[in-house]
Amino acid sequence: MTDRERRARGMLHARRAEIAPFIAMDVMSSARRLEASGRDVVHMEIGEPGHGAPKPAIDAAMARLASGRIGYTEALGLPELRARIARHYRDVHGLEIAAERIAVTTGSSSGFVLAFLAMFDPGQRVAIASPGYPPYRTILQALGLEPVEIEVGAAQRWALDGKAIARAHAERPLEGLLIMSPANPSGTMIDATALQDIATTCRNLGIRLISDEIYHGLTYGMAATSALRFDDDAVIINSFSKYWCMTGWRVGWMVLPETLLRPVERLAQNLFISAPTLSQVAATVAMDAHEELAVVHQGYARNRDLLLRELPRAGLDSFLPPDGAFYLYADIGHLTNDSAAFARAMLDEAGVAATPGMDFDHARGSRFLRFSYAGSEADIAEAVRRIALWRNGTRST
Amino acid sequence: MTDRERRARGMLHARRAEIAPFIAMDVMSSARRLEASGRDVVHMEIGEPGHGAPKPAIDAAMARLASGRIGYTEALGLPELRARIARHYRDVHGLEIAAERIAVTTGSSSGFVLAFLAMFDPGQRVAIASPGYPPYRTILQALGLEPVEIEVGAAQRWALDGKAIARAHAERPLEGLLIMSPANPSGTMIDATALQDIATTCRNLGIRLISDEIYHGLTYGMAATSALRFDDDAVIINSFSKYWCMTGWRVGWMVLPETLLRPVERLAQNLFISAPTLSQVAATVAMDAHEELAVVHQGYARNRDLLLRELPRAGLDSFLPPDGAFYLYADIGHLTNDSAAFARAMLDEAGVAATPGMDFDHARGSRFLRFSYAGSEADIAEAVRRIALWRNGTRST
Repeated sequence: MTDRERRARGMLHARRAEIAPFIAMDVMSSARRLEASGRDVVHMEIGEPGHGAPKPAIDAAMARLASGRIGYTEALGLPELRARIARHYRDVHGLEIAAERIAVTTGSSSGFVLAFLAMFDPGQRVAIASPGYPPYRTILQALGLEPVEIEVGAAQRWALDGKAIARAHAERPLEGLLIMSPANPSGTMIDATALQDIATTCRNLGIRLISDEIYHGLTYGMAATSALRFDDDAVIINSFSKYWCMTGWRVGWMVLPETLLRPVERLAQNLFISAPTLSQVAATVAMDAHEELAVVHQGYARNRDLLLRELPRAGLDSFLPPDGAFYLYADIGHLTNDSAAFARAMLDEAGVAATPGMDFDHARGSRFLRFSYAGSEADIAEAVRRIALWRNGTRST
Repeated sequence: MTDRERRARGMLHARRAEIAPFIAMDVMSSARRLEASGRDVVHMEIGEPGHGAPKPAIDAAMARLASGRIGYTEALGLPELRARIARHYRDVHGLEIAAERIAVTTGSSSGFVLAFLAMFDPGQRVAIASPGYPPYRTILQALGLEPVEIEVGAAQRWALDGKAIARAHAERPLEGLLIMSPANPSGTMIDATALQDIATTCRNLGIRLISDEIYHGLTYGMAATSALRFDDDAVIINSFSKYWCMTGWRVGWMVLPETLLRPVERLAQNLFISAPTLSQVAATVAMDAHEELAVVHQGYARNRDLLLRELPRAGLDSFLPPDGAFYLYADIGHLTNDSAAFARAMLDEAGVAATPGMDFDHARGSRFLRFSYAGSEADIAEAVRRIALWRNGTRST
């Protein structure tokens, strides 16, 4: 049968759809099937806050539902939300960013699609750290770009630096670099000095810098620095999903240099129309819910402390204490060379879902497991209890 | 300055971002600026129902807001929504479609992105009708595909047929075809016989068929037929934005052949994570709001009657009576050869926003104007009054 015949029979899919699944989401599906069958599962597989959206956000959404039609917004978002986000940069980072430079997006996901399409042409090379957030690689691939994975290790605290970037560029020129600090899956950070070094390196080498700052606000020591501090032309990706606990609302933003505004607006008009309106309304007031979100943040800090103390007692003792985000990336190479099988067994036998490292690092991931501790304190305490019981050879019921 | 230097200074955007703006959205932005300055504008530029989401949908969203966290859903959507959509095919079309074949999307927009990425590799050719929905062309371009515009005219009721497709394929082979009935911008339809002819032609020639059925349910004579009736492997795109009046909620769906399920799921996991959760909850019950939506539909029918009667009296007399959707595509070639200037003047002087045809047809659009009559009956009556006054040379105030 020819490709054309197979295509006519719906049997053919595009080669570029041959991307890896987002394993964390497959694990979530398995976990939900298990729950549907009556089992209790603690979810540590998805980077999803156990807390819901802040109360003022819920109230604003309700008021809007009660009062009127939920129509499209302008492609770059509600003016009041763009203005509020611009103010956030003044309040938190001391940076003056014009509201016109903010593009509201459908979660950070659409921010990546827009950034990659607006900034790079097919075949261009964009560097990312490995391990890293799995969709970076797959979105780049789907959009015809070449992800250049620069391997980092625990010895570099899982972080890229100017030298590693310059080395990769010398091998074959890069057009872009995407960094994330605090990082997924490790929770480690790039400090201000290293960030400045990266920004300078990129500018000297003609590499466009994209900074995914989705875990800003969620730190346990030093505060996170925006790449805008060192490169006003950096493209910033952010979202209300993590710090603001609004995952399922699908709303985020980009900060763009002026020259990219109209290209991104054209793409957004055509590919997305606009981000969900109710979510934009809710996000606008969520940004003021400082006290409620500080309490959530303190909960993560206690969850983190609990894991740092208890996981080693269950034999999971090889990891770096995370600086931020709500992940812990454990090396379990002393226990297994198949972290996917380990995760499956932990789900089936202990009722705790976590994500095998293959999602984040194809080369070395079979030795790693990522735990998300964004759940409630009760859930994380229960997970720790189950894992300890399971690692002692006792089946949970 | 080299490209690399310009890139480092944020001055370079990708060639593929050189797509056309979605003019309707630019008109909406202009209209909103005018409104912000205190002017009253009747919106006939965007295909957006004046009615809000059905009441049960609002109630379900409120209940969900009150009761819990709005987390991610599985990438292909809430199981109960997928099941409800599958039942819709049995109820409305007498077709048995497994719920597993439904993928919930972030409006039809993400459906196109997913379909194009999953079905076609870069450089492949996908035919569309011209005039047509502008994002078809631009999304195809942004994703490295070649849109093949097949010009249709009023004489063919603005519709593609098997012959036109075979002719285009003979010139240079096509890999895909995207059809829409009822159509945007004309509101005309492809009847069941012609649809069967198109499906057969595509199957014989090895062309994958995508059918955008977003205006199904909104017809004023014959009912719309799903392409699934003639090709079980066709990819169907639909949305809750139009019939269900849920534009700003950003929720839609695809029906997929089994072979595309996993490729689309992988892409959705990576590019979108999931569609907005609250919108999925609301959409599930919106599908049962038959009576409320029938009343909305009757309002469009009266708006349509009003335009058919009154526009000719204002000198806008060259158009086909629409079979469905809520658009009227008027040939204004006897009044102007610059429909963009005409639309701008109508907005500034009469306070009525409509979309110039260049959005839909680059070759002939400067002679056409699209009116959306999805607004309230009061709004459309007011628009007709303003246009008549304006065409008689009297400025509205």
